Order: sequence, then C-alpha cells, then structure tokens
Amino acid sequence: MSNAESYRVQQAPFYQPQGDEVAHYTAAYAARLPVMLKGPTGCGKSRFVEYMAWQLGKPLISVACNEDMTAADLVGRYLLDANGTRWQDGPLTLAARLGAICYLDEIVEARQDTLVVIHPLTDHRRTLPLDKKGEQVAAHPDFQLVISYNPGYQSLMKDLKQSTKQRFTAFQFDYPDAATEAGIVAREADIDPALAARLVEVAQAGRRLKGHGLDEGISTRLVVYAATLIRRGISEVDACRMAMVRPITDDADVVDTLDHAIAAVFG
Amino acid sequence: MSNAESYRVQQAPFYQPQGDEVAHYTAAYAARLPVMLKGPTGCGKSRFVEYMAWQLGKPLISVACNEDMTAADLVGRYLLDANGTRWQDGPLTLAARLGAICYLDEIVEARQDTLVVIHPLTDHRRTLPLDKKGEQVAAHPDFQLVISYNPGYQSLMKDLKQSTKQRFTAFQFDYPDAATEAGIVAREADIDPALAARLVEVAQAGRRLKGHGLDEGISTRLVVYAATLIRRGISEVDACRMAMVRPITDDADVVDTLDHAIAAVFG
Amino acid sequence: MSNAESYRVQQAPFYQPQGDEVAHYTAAYAARLPVMLKGPTGCGKSRFVEYMAWQLGKPLISVACNEDMTAADLVGRYLLDANGTRWQDGPLTLAARLGAICYLDEIVEARQDTLVVIHPLTDHRRTLPLDKKGEQVAAHPDFQLVISYNPGYQSLMKDLKQSTKQRFTAFQFDYPDAATEAGIVAREADIDPALAARLVEVAQAGRRLKGHGLDEGISTRLVVYAATLIRRGISEVDACRMAMVRPITDDADVVDTLDHAIAAVFG
Amino acid sequence: MSNAESYRVQQAPFYQPQGDEVAHYTAAYAARLPVMLKGPTGCGKSRFVEYMAWQLGKPLISVACNEDMTAADLVGRYLLDANGTRWQDGPLTLAARLGAICYLDEIVEARQDTLVVIHPLTDHRRTLPLDKKGEQVAAHPDFQLVISYNPGYQSLMKDLKQSTKQRFTAFQFDYPDAATEAGIVAREADIDPALAARLVEVAQAGRRLKGHGLDEGISTRLVVYAATLIRRGISEVDACRMAMVRPITDDADVVDTLDHAIAAVFG
Amino acid sequence: MSNAESYRVQQAPFYQPQGDEVAHYTAAYAARLPVMLKGPTGCGKSRFVEYMAWQLGKPLISVACNEDMTAADLVGRYLLDANGTRWQDGPLTLAARLGAICYLDEIVEARQDTLVVIHPLTDHRRTLPLDKKGEQVAAHPDFQLVISYNPGYQSLMKDLKQSTKQRFTAFQFDYPDAATEAGIVAREADIDPALAARLVEVAQAGRRLKGHGLDEGISTRLVVYAATLIRRGISEVDACRMAMVRPITDDADVVDTLDHAIAAVFG
Amino acid sequence: MSNAESYRVQQAPFYQPQGDEVAHYTAAYAARLPVMLKGPTGCGKSRFVEYMAWQLGKPLISVACNEDMTAADLVGRYLLDANGTRWQDGPLTLAARLGAICYLDEIVEARQDTLVVIHPLTDHRRTLPLDKKGEQVAAHPDFQLVISYNPGYQSLMKDLKQSTKQRFTAFQFDYPDAATEAGIVAREADIDPALAARLVEVAQAGRRLKGHGLDEGISTRLVVYAATLIRRGISEVDACRMAMVRPITDDADVVDTLDHAIAAVFG
Repeated sequence: MSNAESYRVQQAPFYQPQGDEVAHYTAAYAARLPVMLKGPTGCGKSRFVEYMAWQLGKPLISVACNEDMTAADLVGRYLLDANGTRWQDGPLTLAARLGAICYLDEIVEARQDTLVVIHPLTDHRRTLPLDKKGEQVAAHPDFQLVISYNPGYQSLMKDLKQSTKQRFTAFQFDYPDAATEAGIVAREADIDPALAARLVEVAQAGRRLKGHGLDEGISTRLVVYAATLIRRGISEVDACRMAMVRPITDDADVVDTLDHAIAAVFG
Repeated sequence: MSNAESYRVQQAPFYQPQGDEVAHYTAAYAARLPVMLKGPTGCGKSRFVEYMAWQLGKPLISVACNEDMTAADLVGRYLLDANGTRWQDGPLTLAARLGAICYLDEIVEARQDTLVVIHPLTDHRRTLPLDKKGEQVAAHPDFQLVISYNPGYQSLMKDLKQSTKQRFTAFQFDYPDAATEAGIVAREADIDPALAARLVEVAQAGRRLKGHGLDEGISTRLVVYAATLIRRGISEVDACRMAMVRPITDDADVVDTLDHAIAAVFG
Repeated sequence: MSNAESYRVQQAPFYQPQGDEVAHYTAAYAARLPVMLKGPTGCGKSRFVEYMAWQLGKPLISVACNEDMTAADLVGRYLLDANGTRWQDGPLTLAARLGAICYLDEIVEARQDTLVVIHPLTDHRRTLPLDKKGEQVAAHPDFQLVISYNPGYQSLMKDLKQSTKQRFTAFQFDYPDAATEAGIVAREADIDPALAARLVEVAQAGRRLKGHGLDEGISTRLVVYAATLIRRGISEVDACRMAMVRPITDDADVVDTLDHAIAAVFG
Repeated sequence: MSNAESYRVQQAPFYQPQGDEVAHYTAAYAARLPVMLKGPTGCGKSRFVEYMAWQLGKPLISVACNEDMTAADLVGRYLLDANGTRWQDGPLTLAARLGAICYLDEIVEARQDTLVVIHPLTDHRRTLPLDKKGEQVAAHPDFQLVISYNPGYQSLMKDLKQSTKQRFTAFQFDYPDAATEAGIVAREADIDPALAARLVEVAQAGRRLKGHGLDEGISTRLVVYAATLIRRGISEVDACRMAMVRPITDDADVVDTLDHAIAAVFG
Repeated sequence: MSNAESYRVQQAPFYQPQGDEVAHYTAAYAARLPVMLKGPTGCGKSRFVEYMAWQLGKPLISVACNEDMTAADLVGRYLLDANGTRWQDGPLTLAARLGAICYLDEIVEARQDTLVVIHPLTDHRRTLPLDKKGEQVAAHPDFQLVISYNPGYQSLMKDLKQSTKQRFTAFQFDYPDAATEAGIVAREADIDPALAARLVEVAQAGRRLKGHGLDEGISTRLVVYAATLIRRGISEVDACRMAMVRPITDDADVVDTLDHAIAAVFG
Repeated sequence: MSNAESYRVQQAPFYQPQGDEVAHYTAAYAARLPVMLKGPTGCGKSRFVEYMAWQLGKPLISVACNEDMTAADLVGRYLLDANGTRWQDGPLTLAARLGAICYLDEIVEARQDTLVVIHPLTDHRRTLPLDKKGEQVAAHPDFQLVISYNPGYQSLMKDLKQSTKQRFTAFQFDYPDAATEAGIVAREADIDPALAARLVEVAQAGRRLKGHGLDEGISTRLVVYAATLIRRGISEVDACRMAMVRPITDDADVVDTLDHAIAAVFG
C-alpha cells in the first residue's frame, strides 16, 4: 500500500504536551471517535495532529478548508481523459480507503452545507456515498476524521451546524504557559532560553490586548519568528516589531502600545 | 436485480421504538404515502428509516442534502464518455427505478426550488420526468420517499414550501425517555447501566439549556461517545467534558453551567 | 407521431368539476388562448389540466418550474456527442412541435426573465425562436400553453411581470365545497362517505387558521392521506395528526389548536 | 441570400397607425438611426416594428431580452464540434451581416452592461467587434437596431444607462383612442363593433386604476381575448372576468372594482 | 505584420479640437504614459482616441468594457480544438504584441479587480503576465494604454481603485462651446449652420437640467440625430422631441420643460 | 533549469533604500521567513521586492491578485489536450518548485479563503498540497513567499484573516522623505533636481489632503509622470494637473485646492 506510505509522517514532529491531550486522543482514536480541535491561531493544533499520526503510525491527509471548497473537492470528481471520463478520489475518499487520519483544517471556512458529506462517515454507518459515481465507500477500520476550528472566528454566517458539531469529541487548546512556550521558542529558533523568556513576555503583553484592539493574540509562531530574526542579527526591538507587531495590526494606537511593551522588556 | 441488493440494509440495525412509530410507518408504507421525519439532531431519525427498510426488506438509498445540491444531483446527468455523453441516474431516479426507499436527509438544507423535482413522485402521478433526457420514469410499485428535517433550524430563508410539505405524512421524534436512553447507551457503548443512567442525567441537564444558551440539546450520540471514552479509560468528568460540552458550545458561561452539572453528577 | 403518443394521458383522470371551468377551458382551447390556473396548493389545478388534456385528446407535457430553471431547460440545448454537438429540444419546444398542451406548474418559482421565452408563443406570432440553433419553430395548430400559480406565494421578489400576465386568460380555483370534497375523499381513499365528511370538517377548521398562524390551508390531498391511513388501520385521531397537522406546521400553539379540532370531531 | 429570406415578414401584418409614426420611422430608417419604442405592455410596439419591416421589405430578427442573456447570446459563441470549435453568429451579428432590422424586445430586462456590445453598432463606427473571434463585423448598409422598453418598469436597478439611451431616437406609444381600439378588437376577434366598443369601455375603466392598485393598464390584447371568448360562446361577464380581470390582479378589492365596472357595462 | 494593419484607422476621422488636447496627448504618447479620458457621454472621447491613433499612425484596438468582462476576455484564453487546446490572445495581449493603442472604453463598467491585469503594463515593467499560459509578454515599444470613464457614473460600487487611477495621466473633456458644436452638427448632418446653432440652443437648455431631473446632458450625438431627421423631412419640433427629449427621460415634468424649450426656439 | 532563468530579474532595478529594509529583508530571507510589505499605493513595494530578488540572485514570480482569482489560478489546473487532460502548474507551484521568490501583489484583493492555500507553504511544513493532482510539492530550499498590501484599503469585507497574517514578518513602507523623493524623480525622468523638488512640494501638499477629500496620497509614480510630461514640452502647470490632479479625483473642490497648490509652487 505504497500510496498510504506517501502520507505517513516521516519524522517525529516536535510536540510539547500541555496536559492529558495525548492520552485523551489515544482513547478517542482507539474507538475511532471523530475529533474536533478547538483553539486560537498558531497554538499548535496542526502540529498536535501530526504528532499523533506519527505516534499512532497512521497516514495523515490534511486539507486546508476554504469557502470555495465544494463537496467534490473533498470527495472526488470525474476528470476528462483520452478515453472519456476517469474518476479521481478526493482527499476524504482517499483517507477513507487507506485508513488514514483525515484532518480538515479551519473547517469553519468551508461552506457548512458542503460539510454534510462527512456526516455518514461520522456515525455508525462509517460510509461515504459517492453519489456521482454510484459507489458506497466503507471506511477502512483505521480511518478517523479530525477537524480544527477557531471559536474566535465564529460568526452568525460561519459557525458549524449542531448536526455537524454533535458528531465530534472536542479538545480545547490554548497558548502554552510561559515556561513551556519559552522552551518551545528556544528549541525551535536555537536561541538562549533567557532571551526566549523575554520574547514570551512581549507576546503575553500582546495577548492581553485581545478584545481590546486585537482580534487574536500573538501566536507562538510569531515569537519563534522574532527569535529567528534576532539569531540572524536583527536587533531585539526591530525583530519584535517586524514579527510580533506589524503583521497583526494596522491600528496606530495598538502599534504604539505594543512598541511600548517591547521597550519595557528590551529597552 | 443485483443493484437493488447493494442498497439492501445488511444487518438488523439496533432500534429502540419510542411509541407506535413502527406500526404507523408500516401503514404509511403500505399505502406508499410519502413520509416526513421531524425532530432534533441525533434523536434517531436516520436509524429509524434504516430499521424500517430492513424490516420491510426494501433497499434504502440515502442522500445527505446540502445547499449546493442541484436537481441534477438527485435526478441524474449526462457524463462525457469516449463515445460522447452517457446518462447516469441520480439517487432519486435510481430509487424510483429499483423500488427503493429514498431517504433525503436534512432536506431543509437543499434549495427549496430544487425540491420541486420530487413533486410528481409524491402525488397520484408517481412519475419522475427526466427533462434533460426526455424520459418519464414511472416509479416502481415499491418506491417510497422519506425526508427528514429539524424544525429547530427552520428560518425565513430555509423552510419547506407548503406545496412541498403538503405532500407528506409526518412523524414527530424526540429524545427517548431517560430509562430508554440509558438502555440504548449501555448497549451501544457496552457499559454498566447505572453509569449510563448518570450520563443521561448530564444530557438531560444540558437539554434544559436549549433556548437558554444552547441551540440544540445534547444528542444521544454524544452520550454514547462519553460512555465509549470512559470504557477506554478516560475519567468520567473528562469524558463528559470532551463529548458532551466542548463540541456543542464555545460560550464560557454555558461551559461553566454544564461543567457544574457534570460535577453534580460525578463529583 | 409516436412521440406525441407517449405524452397522451392514458386513463381518464378522476376530476370533479366545481363550476363552468370545463366549458370555459374548452372555449379557451378552441381559440388556443393561453391559460393561467390560479389557486392554493393542492386544490386540483394539475388534475384539471390533465383531465382537460384527456378530454380534448391532446398530449400533455408538464414542467415543474424551479428557481434554477434556465431558458435552455425549457427550450433545449446542445449536447456533446461522439460527433460533436447535437441539439435536444426542451419540453416547451417539444410541445410546440407536437401540438401538445404544455403545462408550466408553479410558474412563480421560475426566474421571471427566463419566462420571456414564452412571449412569442403567446401572441399572434405563435413561434418559438431557438436563438442558439438559429431556428424559428412555428407552433403546431394544436399547441396551447397553460401555467399555474398560487397567489398566496406572491411576493415582491416573485411575481409574474405584467408583460407576462397580460398574455393569459385566468381560471380561479379554490377548495371544493364540503359535500364535493367529501365525495372526492371517499372515492379516492375508498372510505365511508360519513367518515370522509368528518375529515373534511377537520380540514375546514384548519383552513380557517390561514393567515392566523398557517400560511396555507389544509389541502384535499392531505385529507385523502388521513383517510388512507385510517383505511390501513391507524386510529382516526392519529391519522389526522400525521396527515393534516404535523406536516404543515411546527408551531406548538397551532398544533394544539388543530389537535383540539380533531378531538372535537373524533373525540 | 436565402438566410435573409427566412427572416422576411411573410404577410402584411395588420397595423392601425395612431399618428405620424410610420413617416417618422421611415425617416429614421432612411438615415439608419437607431430607434427606441417606448410604451406600456400590449400597446402594439412589436406589431409596429413587424409592420415597418414588412413595408420596408427588410428582414426582421427579434430577440426577447432577459436578465440571463449574456453578450454571447447576442453576439455569438464557439460551439464544440467533431473538429473542435465552430463559431456560431448570434442574432445581433446575423442581423448586422444580413442587413436586417434587429429588434431587442423588452431591453430593460437585459443586464445593462451586456448592452454595451451594441454601442459600436449605434455610432459612426457601425461595427460589431467579435472579441472572442478576433473579427470586426462592419454592419450591412441596411442594418438598423430597434429596441423597445416600458418606462413603467423602470427602477433603480433596471434602467438603461444614459450612454446607451443617448444612441437612439425615441417613439412614444400609448393605448389607441377608444374608436381605433374598438375597430382593432372587432377586426381581430371578428365580433360586432358595438360589442367591441363596450369591451373597450371596460378596459378604459381598468386603465384608470393604473397607479391605484394596478401596475399596468389592461392591454388591447386582453380585450381581444375577451372578445374571442364571447365569440366562442362564453357569456360577456365571464369572458371579461377571465380575460381582463383575473390575469392582471390578485387583489380582492381591485377584482371587486373591476367586476363592478363589468356589471355596469354588461349588467 | 498584416494583423496590425487590420486595426489601423482607415480614414482620417473628423475631430474638432477644443484646446491643447492634441499636443498633450502627443507628449503623453511620446513617453508612452498611460492615458485616462474623462468626461460625459457623447462628448467625443472615443472619436478623439481614434483621431490620435490615425494621426500617430498606430493601430487602435478598442474594447467596450462591461460588468461581465473577465480578465480572460482582455488577456486571452485556451480554446478547444481538434488537437486539444489552442491559446487565443485577447485584445489587450494583441495590442501589447502589435504595438497598438489599446482603448478600454467605459472602464468603470468592468469589475475593478479584473483591471489589476493592466497594472504590470502600466508601470516600469511594461509586461503582461499570461499566468494561464506561463508566458510573460513584453509590450511592444509602440504600445500604449488608454481608458475612458465618465465621472458622473461614479458610485461607491463602481469607482476605479486608487492603485489603478495612479497609473494614468488624465484628460478632461466636456461638451464643445456653442459655435464649435454648431459647426460639428452642420458638418456631420449636412445642414444649414444657422439651423445647427438653433439645435445647439435646445441642447444647451437641456444640459442646464443636469442634476435637476436629468442625469446627463444632451450629447452632441443626439443633436446630430435631430439635424439628420430634419434633413429627412421631419419637422424641427418633432425631430427635437424624437432625438433630444424622448430618448433621455421618462419624467413627464422634464419632458414638458424640454418641449417648452423646443417651442421657444422653433415655435 | 532554464525555466528559472526566465524569471530572473535581468537588470539591476533602481531602488533607493529608505532605512534598514535591505538588511532586514536579507535576514528574513536567510531564514526563509514569509514577508509582508505594507504601505500606500505607489511607494515602491513592488520595486523593492524586485531589487531584493536581483540582489539575492533568485528568480521572482509576481502575481497581481484579484477578486476573481481562484485557488487554481495560484496552484494550477488540468488543461484539455489532444490526449485528455494535462496538468499545468500555477505561479505559486512553479515558484515552490523552482526555488523562486513568489510575490503576491495587492493580496487583499484576493478572496481571503483562496489564500488558505498558502498556509502549508508558510509554516514548518513548507509544502503545497495539490489536492486535484494528488501530489504534495515540497518547497525548494530557496523558495520564499512575499505579499504586499495597502492598509488603507482594509475594510470589513477585505482584510486578511489573523490565521493568514500570523504567518508573516512585516515591513512598513511609506513615501520617501522629500530629498530622497526628489532624487528619485530627477533620476527617473531625467530632469533638473530643483524642478523635481518643486514637483515633490506639490505632491506633499496633495498628501496632506488624505482623509480630507482624498482616499490616497499622490504617489511618487505620478510625480515622475509630471516630470516626464514637462520634459516632453508640456507646461509645468498643465503637467501637474494632468498627472497629479485629474487622475486621482473627480471632486471639484479637491481639484480647486490642488490647482491652487500648483499655482503656489509654479505660479
């Protein structure tokens, strides 16, 4: 089954557990329960599913959802060929056949109604009807569905329907605590742990502005960016501004407040 | 008629009757009256139709409706082939030809106007005109149409038209009573009936929040999820949180209320 | 002209006249005037046009209109073939060629502007230009156009334009009087006329709620459904609820009122 | 030029002039000025252009405009063929090549922006660029463009742009005076002139309701319908109701008022 | 390069300069600066660009923009062929290759975002990336881009973005002064200059109503129409009404005011 | 790898640094961090990325984003061929394969959700999944993603999502200071530095109107246009009006204010 191999996670991804999530996921996977990962941007949801796929030794097929994604993008479609039409499985169908973990990232972006195609895969039926092909795919025993979503984006227009939500067990993620985060930053950017801790201080100052001028906190990823720039010779203040302030806001007042926080830490 | 066989329900599905619905459905089917199943998410509508198809010995063709579903998705379309175009029946046409029960799940999701294609199948004509093919399909004597819908989702934009509604007999579903539900949970997750009863207590606490912070009650499916996680070694409190709280709400107050209910039962 | 034969109404449809409509229609057809049938859901408009087609011995081509119907769905289109494209007549074109009665059901559902294609068929020209094919179809002398519409659905967004309306003679339909309706129900469901009369009583109670909680009255079709279920052994009260209440409303107050009406008649 | 022949008006259409419009049109055609025909539904605009085409001996190509009409529907498109794609002229291109009068009926229905394709045909250039084909069609010296529109429908969303309007000379049409209209009705339906005069009285009563419950007056076409039904044996009152009241309004008060007008004339 | 020839302006167009616009355009062309022509409907913008193309001896490719125009309509697309797909340059690409002046007429009609395709052609790059073809077209040294737009149509929905506007030098056009306009009318319609002057008087009266009941002034084109009709024997009053009043307004009060102005001049 | 060559910047572009941006970019590129360039229209963002690509010796693939750009336009699609379908890489895929800098210009124009396709290229995965082809493209080690956007255009409808923003380091651009800008203008248009300085004075006067009648300041590009026209013999006042006033506003008051500023400088 060489196809499955190509979706296997090749290297152990670095993942720093924050609680019981590894044990909980292992139990959910054992029962093949569908899983929903909730949490803010850049707190490690995608990394976690990659880590679990690697630990469970299962192939992982990820799909970044978007508003224009049709059911056919998930399920498959007929392509024109020299001999007429040829069916091509979509990533969801492929995962169901191979017994992979199928990860639908940022699922609120997808049109809710497109998502009804996952319903028969997430109840006792564990089947995927390919209406256009007239085939019913019975999911491989190893298949599991995982979705991520960021409750902060939730709006009247873009929320999952209850009939979709009530098919998942949910894991709540958040930014790691300061010590854990500094450890991650130091390791990922290969910088001094003390410097990492000061960068995390800046990030935490920024996160307190969430709901007060910022839509989202500063992600761990941006802290790693700042650390990386410092390692490449950029000054600490410039690196924080480039990586942790300028990308996330255009509001002059918020920029000022954050620049002061940087000065307070590195001034 | 090997095609019909592939749509036959292979095993007796587990279904716990809640009233006279089996007798009522049997009568409606005997007269081939179209049937509408009404009720909240996860209360067993899909399971019921599967059970009836099995008991009546008829093939079942299910379609999960969605907003992007066109009439062609139900009725069929021409596909390109090496020799030009080839007609492919859609699930509704297939059901009409084979004498299957055709189950249109979550019908309010479909564009109302697409649904006019079912009209000639649900009155004295019992025919399906394939306008694009220039064919009139007379429904097989065993054909019956069943739709499900959740009145809770009903809105100005998404309601069935009276001219559609007035073609169906309706069955009202709700969550089972506590004892019945505990029996279902114990059987499905293979756990102790006393534990199942306590999980149902939590679910019922949650259902009282419907309209007071929750759009929908906690479905029996989620109770079974919690029971399954407990069986896999997750603590009762964690399992309830993962399966019955986190998936259905992002509201911190509602989460708190539900966590208290869990603590009251399992604390 | 075997094609026309396949659209001929095979059996005399049961139709119970309510006034002079048969004579009036016969006159309109004699002059080939276009006809508009107005009235609420399920009051017999489709049955009437079928009856008239049978009595006049003309083929009948029916089209259930919907919002996604394009002009091409009525008029025809090119299909891909082994030898390139091939024209296929739509139902309107077919009717114009064969000399059939073309019945556009629930015409307000169609996009108004799509309907301009019927204009040249409904004035002195009696032609249908197939712009895409570069052909002008002169209507067969027997061709007639009939449309139905339900004024209750009329809204700012969905009303016929005056330039369309002013091409038709109109027939106003309504529910039959009680005695006539009871006769229809008794005959269609093969039940006792006295029982039929009591079912009609329930329906009339419901119709009085139109505009006071119900968008539409209870159609004769639903009364026949209730009668049919009773004949299959369902109790009178259950049958009335399943066929005449639950399908048409989700409003608990309206359900109560109707249940009381049922109890008053059958309690 | 057999193609042009197929668009030639075969018989002298009956047209009753109401003023100098024939002389004015003849002058506009002599200079090949584009012409706009304005007026209410059913007052004879289409008949007039047919009459002029017949009198001038020019082919006439009519297009009923609608909201879904694309530029390609007017100009032409590539069709798939056994040997790849083949260009097919649209009606506007065909008219420009053949030297026909091209009549765009109910032009406000078309998307305004689609209409910019007519601009180069209506100024000193008299050319039609076929961008998709890379060809510039120089209009035949006999080509003329005529459009009709009903100012009553004019709305913010649907009005011609000034840059389109300022390419036309305009003819204002209205219902004919009573004597002329009665003459038309008597001739078209072959009825007694006195009866025709009484039917016109009813129509005029209805036209006074325009803006007071009716969007449009009763067209001459509907008066002819009523006359035709009377000739087929329908009573005068029934014929007026079927042809002049029921098709144009669903408002019970307006129906009453018009029924009284009928009773006043024929009672 | 016979293709370029087919786009060359064949005859010297009649153009009456109103100021320094010819010298200014010549300078802009010498530096190949993109040009924007601003001004009301029918004031001669298209004629001017044609005149300049003729004077500079460059081919001219004009595109009438519309809301449905896609980037592919400007840039080109793959067409199906007997041997698969074949690329066909759009008018913008063709102009860039041939060294033509490309004139995008009524550019506000086009979707703003479609217009970003012109950006790389209007800065120091002077290239047109054909993303779908994987080719970068370097513009011919003679290529220049010209757009026209009418500020009067400008609305929140339809305005050019600053990032588009700031790529052009702009020329402001207006109606010519009375003497110049009378000269144009007399020459174009071959009428007496005194009569032309009186027609211009009527037009100027109408232009004073702009913003007071009229969206746009009466264009010179309509004055020429009126002159042409008079030359064909229509009375002065009738010709003014047909050409300068009826086409541009449906408002009875505005019609009255304009009819009085005509009577004042020709009465 | 001749394909990469064709995307290499051929000549050293003229770029006048305004601060540390060259060093900062060099550091970001060394770590292959994604880069966001922020700033107003025409302040040199595109020129900067071109300059950096040239200095780093990497190929540059630019894409002008627009609202109609689909994920397929970035990623690639199947084309029809004589032998069926053939895959064609989009610009993003091409850049990922070749190791180019991929520059997405005016990214706010693109549909946000389309942009999720860049997510897996901008985190630790550095891969691009081609779902339709069933291929995972691992980015070349030299690949880097750069986006530009203008915060001034930011609106509720068109802003980048935080989950996109938090993948970039940001560079803030603005108009250069007066001396630098005059130097650029003098060099680009080959005019006298003193004249250039006076033109910059006019531009700065205009920029003070931003938010007071102007949506955007006058870009350096327009100052260069004015200088170019003066070099071609147009008077200073006319050149300023044509290049710096008429293109950017239709508001008579703003035009007046700017014309006074021109008179103050050149009068």
